[in-house]
Amino acid sequence: MEKIPVAILGASGTVGQRLVSILYKHPWFEPVALCASERSVGKPYAEAVKWKLQTPIPLAAANKTVQSCLPVQEAVLAFSALDADVAYDIEESWAKSGKLVVSNTKCHRMRSNIPLIIPELNASHLSLISKQAYPAGGAIVTNPNCSTIGLAMALKPLHDAFGIKAASVVTMQAASGAGYPGVSFMDLLDNVIPYIPGEEEKLESEPKKILGQLAEDGASIKFADFAMSAACHRVPVMNGHLEAVSVLLEKKANKEEIIEAWLAMDADTDGLKLPSSPRRPLAYDDKPERPQPRYDRMAGNGMTVSIGRLRPCAILGWKFELLSHNTLRGGAGGTVLLAELCVAKGLLSARVPAKSAELMLI
Amino acid sequence: MEKIPVAILGASGTVGQRLVSILYKHPWFEPVALCASERSVGKPYAEAVKWKLQTPIPLAAANKTVQSCLPVQEAVLAFSALDADVAYDIEESWAKSGKLVVSNTKCHRMRSNIPLIIPELNASHLSLISKQAYPAGGAIVTNPNCSTIGLAMALKPLHDAFGIKAASVVTMQAASGAGYPGVSFMDLLDNVIPYIPGEEEKLESEPKKILGQLAEDGASIKFADFAMSAACHRVPVMNGHLEAVSVLLEKKANKEEIIEAWLAMDADTDGLKLPSSPRRPLAYDDKPERPQPRYDRMAGNGMTVSIGRLRPCAILGWKFELLSHNTLRGGAGGTVLLAELCVAKGLLSARVPAKSAELMLI
Amino acid sequence: MEKIPVAILGASGTVGQRLVSILYKHPWFEPVALCASERSVGKPYAEAVKWKLQTPIPLAAANKTVQSCLPVQEAVLAFSALDADVAYDIEESWAKSGKLVVSNTKCHRMRSNIPLIIPELNASHLSLISKQAYPAGGAIVTNPNCSTIGLAMALKPLHDAFGIKAASVVTMQAASGAGYPGVSFMDLLDNVIPYIPGEEEKLESEPKKILGQLAEDGASIKFADFAMSAACHRVPVMNGHLEAVSVLLEKKANKEEIIEAWLAMDADTDGLKLPSSPRRPLAYDDKPERPQPRYDRMAGNGMTVSIGRLRPCAILGWKFELLSHNTLRGGAGGTVLLAELCVAKGLLSARVPAKSAELMLI
Amino acid sequence: MEKIPVAILGASGTVGQRLVSILYKHPWFEPVALCASERSVGKPYAEAVKWKLQTPIPLAAANKTVQSCLPVQEAVLAFSALDADVAYDIEESWAKSGKLVVSNTKCHRMRSNIPLIIPELNASHLSLISKQAYPAGGAIVTNPNCSTIGLAMALKPLHDAFGIKAASVVTMQAASGAGYPGVSFMDLLDNVIPYIPGEEEKLESEPKKILGQLAEDGASIKFADFAMSAACHRVPVMNGHLEAVSVLLEKKANKEEIIEAWLAMDADTDGLKLPSSPRRPLAYDDKPERPQPRYDRMAGNGMTVSIGRLRPCAILGWKFELLSHNTLRGGAGGTVLLAELCVAKGLLSARVPAKSAELMLI
Repeated sequence: MEKIPVAILGASGTVGQRLVSILYKHPWFEPVALCASERSVGKPYAEAVKWKLQTPIPLAAANKTVQSCLPVQEAVLAFSALDADVAYDIEESWAKSGKLVVSNTKCHRMRSNIPLIIPELNASHLSLISKQAYPAGGAIVTNPNCSTIGLAMALKPLHDAFGIKAASVVTMQAASGAGYPGVSFMDLLDNVIPYIPGEEEKLESEPKKILGQLAEDGASIKFADFAMSAACHRVPVMNGHLEAVSVLLEKKANKEEIIEAWLAMDADTDGLKLPSSPRRPLAYDDKPERPQPRYDRMAGNGMTVSIGRLRPCAILGWKFELLSHNTLRGGAGGTVLLAELCVAKGLLSARVPAKSAELMLI
Repeated sequence: MEKIPVAILGASGTVGQRLVSILYKHPWFEPVALCASERSVGKPYAEAVKWKLQTPIPLAAANKTVQSCLPVQEAVLAFSALDADVAYDIEESWAKSGKLVVSNTKCHRMRSNIPLIIPELNASHLSLISKQAYPAGGAIVTNPNCSTIGLAMALKPLHDAFGIKAASVVTMQAASGAGYPGVSFMDLLDNVIPYIPGEEEKLESEPKKILGQLAEDGASIKFADFAMSAACHRVPVMNGHLEAVSVLLEKKANKEEIIEAWLAMDADTDGLKLPSSPRRPLAYDDKPERPQPRYDRMAGNGMTVSIGRLRPCAILGWKFELLSHNTLRGGAGGTVLLAELCVAKGLLSARVPAKSAELMLI
Repeated sequence: MEKIPVAILGASGTVGQRLVSILYKHPWFEPVALCASERSVGKPYAEAVKWKLQTPIPLAAANKTVQSCLPVQEAVLAFSALDADVAYDIEESWAKSGKLVVSNTKCHRMRSNIPLIIPELNASHLSLISKQAYPAGGAIVTNPNCSTIGLAMALKPLHDAFGIKAASVVTMQAASGAGYPGVSFMDLLDNVIPYIPGEEEKLESEPKKILGQLAEDGASIKFADFAMSAACHRVPVMNGHLEAVSVLLEKKANKEEIIEAWLAMDADTDGLKLPSSPRRPLAYDDKPERPQPRYDRMAGNGMTVSIGRLRPCAILGWKFELLSHNTLRGGAGGTVLLAELCVAKGLLSARVPAKSAELMLI
Repeated sequence: MEKIPVAILGASGTVGQRLVSILYKHPWFEPVALCASERSVGKPYAEAVKWKLQTPIPLAAANKTVQSCLPVQEAVLAFSALDADVAYDIEESWAKSGKLVVSNTKCHRMRSNIPLIIPELNASHLSLISKQAYPAGGAIVTNPNCSTIGLAMALKPLHDAFGIKAASVVTMQAASGAGYPGVSFMDLLDNVIPYIPGEEEKLESEPKKILGQLAEDGASIKFADFAMSAACHRVPVMNGHLEAVSVLLEKKANKEEIIEAWLAMDADTDGLKLPSSPRRPLAYDDKPERPQPRYDRMAGNGMTVSIGRLRPCAILGWKFELLSHNTLRGGAGGTVLLAELCVAKGLLSARVPAKSAELMLI
């Protein structure tokens, strides 16, 4: 079967490396261009990158020459893991060239005609693309912030079943979320940093868009209406964002009902057989000391959100802990799953070889 | 001047070591007995202890023979840093022998006739002693849990000025809080543990007693009436508990008023010239990334609580971060300050050499 | 095909957990007994163990009732990961019951009639068993210390090709080598401990036995005759022992020849198709900053020793760095590989079902 | 008394911050210029610097405007903590302006007419200045590499007493040695890096110059003649370089004699009353698990080198462990001590106010 030719923008960064690692063995996609900043252009990828994963660089990537971030003819889809300060224009230029851009960067997320998607939660929001003015096939879809994803995934089933009136979250975020080199060892050893620039703002706004309601015409989102408060911390952990959450529900619910809402969640990806879908988007562990970053971050190949410690909160009613892998579910893995969703929903149908499309939709 | 002869119960533990380190150079107190479990009795202290401080063992302590925890005639005051499972009876036996017990352990804290004191906040609660049935001079006073202290100190000025209706706290607590050996390296490297047995219960109850109102007759406390929710985590930090706090105030207050309430706090220790009093019980740092454990835990020799990041909370109104040193302010330092308060308030007056008492009260 | 029924002694410890994890999916072996100390006997394994691996407990193990360490009739082979202080007698009792004991503990290693084996290096030493006085089928074979294995594997090809006159090693060993709970977090954060009781002695003696020469009658070993000096350190790393080695060779060799000796090593396991054999026992990486514990410990599923930085030493001639996984190659993995070797060499032939034996030897 | 006006070059770096911290409370020196790169020039120091010490910025420094690195008229001495890539020319320009440059950077250290000094060891080497061609008062003197200092201090008494024929060292160096931001948290958590560019070369050459013999005319050094081999590692430690050393002595010596040589060391600073001199340059601790970075780095205010674990080495004869604080003794503290030595030796006599000079020489 022919695979879909794709480009990876920002291929040498932390999330970019994860994308390379995932996409070179992906059953649907085939990387045809590794794009990065001028500093890397012209070098073999293995030389341009400071590879930080514990699995080796895929052989085919290692020798590939890094390209600039200009749109590449043969790619029909671009995965973007670009730095936020350059992403806006580059992603637009690809969309204007008729490419589907699946982006992990923040810059387009909150625009009204840009879908901000967690595939299991709000696949229907993809219809916002109809309001984008890019030429045939061109579009931008976005993946939320790494700390938003775990939270939104835990809140959505509660919102659907009981209604959420308020949610308070205190995050303990891993160092890899700051990219590489990111945080200095001297800043984080034996320490916690109670501030991540811009992070609380994202965490207080993105979930409301994701949990928002699509208008009947599919062309706009009515944001979810609940109070949201976030306090973000960087902790001395490599991977895995831990979040302490309190929620105020509209309807009364007991512990069993809440856990049941999580475990029985209807996912928009059900039945689509997307290669990156975990068996269970949410898992609940009853042991009091879980979830923990080192033990739970790889649940579902890093795509499952682990929840635990559901207990009464004297202020908002319920509190719990959640953990999600910030560069897999919260980064590269989530982005690839979103691209898979786009394919399954036919967004590339005009542009991919018929056989691939068939394969996918079976 | 003669010093007051004191005993240290649980002298070989983490807090006990801090007590030894502080009391051997204290201007008022003189350790006459280092008491520990049977395993250590009869050994020189230097041999019985696994010394974990970066300053060396005081020479006079090093060679002192460790005693059992039976009451010692010559000591008039006992500092207790005993393990909770043995502390109840041992502390009682000292009080019954007419000694003043100043305890850092949890077991007596919530009893109705036991003062639970942070010297700057509720010195008047010492009057509860009148309801204790111990013989002349005998009494038990207690120091709160290490995670309670920082929180209660930050809440008290707000409660006095504006009234607190609810407070939510998420803690990121240092490893030393679990004692030694405490947490295994294998459990905490590259990890956060979202559970500390019994800790949330303490944090949800102790502040209400400390901020409670003394009855007119001085013989009982009416607990403060606000909702309190805590979520406790162990993080890979040596010393210094960081807490993310949200509060709902009864009266409206703006940012300047709240900071002013902290900085202008009236402390019950003002004017008492207690040797362990920090110049400022509370400090506020405006830099967005503070307080941090490694940089702020030693503020005021580990006795000042550092606050920062006061900002609006979409749910409760205001949120901020605080940091306090868990084995100094939250352990040995707080316990010594409490003993100093007891002395200054005359609790030992009948039992200490006249000259010492004079010295202290000047 | 029928599998060989085995017992795991010390199943709840750090190496024991790795054994459980490996053996429950092993193609040749089938655990029929999980044995541990009295504290655990009678409990389901999942309850008796503080599971520390990031993969979950095998389901079949989780519900299995833990037994005492008395010999179990149905098991023909016992893997021992017992604590050194109880291992001697228990292992003997199994051997006396006619079982083959494959042990990871130190207590029998240096006895003259006990094989101390790294399967790739000195499989022939198994013949020492002929001098053991246990009843039919009973025998003890041993796996070296975790820090010995990487060193011996790097030295053997050099010894064969050029002769070793002296080897000096400074180790930087991972925390998991001390078992669980092992090292306190308070001892190892922001620290290195330049002492591991008994470790330097093992490292200075075991390699000489492993690299020793079997007498013609197969009944004794002439230890290798070279000077050996070790300095051992515990570093804040979870898994993977790093060792800085200098060697003095008898014959002159250049850099290429030495690397070639490593990469072209003749392994005694070649052709045996042992399930746990890595594709390459030794790997050499030319990048100056390798090997590193976090990046190289899982090479060859944790069974490959990674070498790097070969360069001249002004004193001994050559120096290099090596890394091996201390609980896989240096613990459970090495022990399982040794058991596989024993099977392939026919040590169990009289005792296993014919079909299994056939399978193995094909 | 008037103090000596000094400049600090590279004031905002890791060692520069330590210099600022020490010099603003120094009894002899008074900083009149804080010099840094163009990026910082014109800003208040508190704004230009990312302050990484746990003590606060000295108030007088905080508000001082950062200057360029051009020579400053009023300063008679410049402390240099510049980056190696710019230090050569800037230091020369100060020397050419008649200033005494006391440098912590590597670039001039190995030049034949530049003293490379550890004040206790080779103060006489200052006479090399006579071969420098700078105008009156101008000169450059240098402080060794942070990993060299501890080693040279431990070797010198052995060299004097017994003669050294060979010394092998394996270092475990702290992260702060790489400056700030230096090593990424992602590179050093749960890891050791077996390579520090250029470090082994420094460690194999500098000790031979420091332990070298001054020619009769005081104008050249005959390097010490022994074999030296180094292997350098970066470990997850904040401060304190630990080194595992083996030595081959010319004369036979037993354990007591070696320890005695260390403890009874004749220091060239004896009797000079230099403010930064520790009470003891070397300390020996007999406990088997010492020295350790976290417990021993602050010995003698970070100026004492801690030695331990002296024991036989089967190859070279003796081995031991040493620890020194890399940014105090090995950086700012050592540099200040060297400047004090220069003052005491009269190198500034023509240029400092008479009264200061008197003070110093008393």
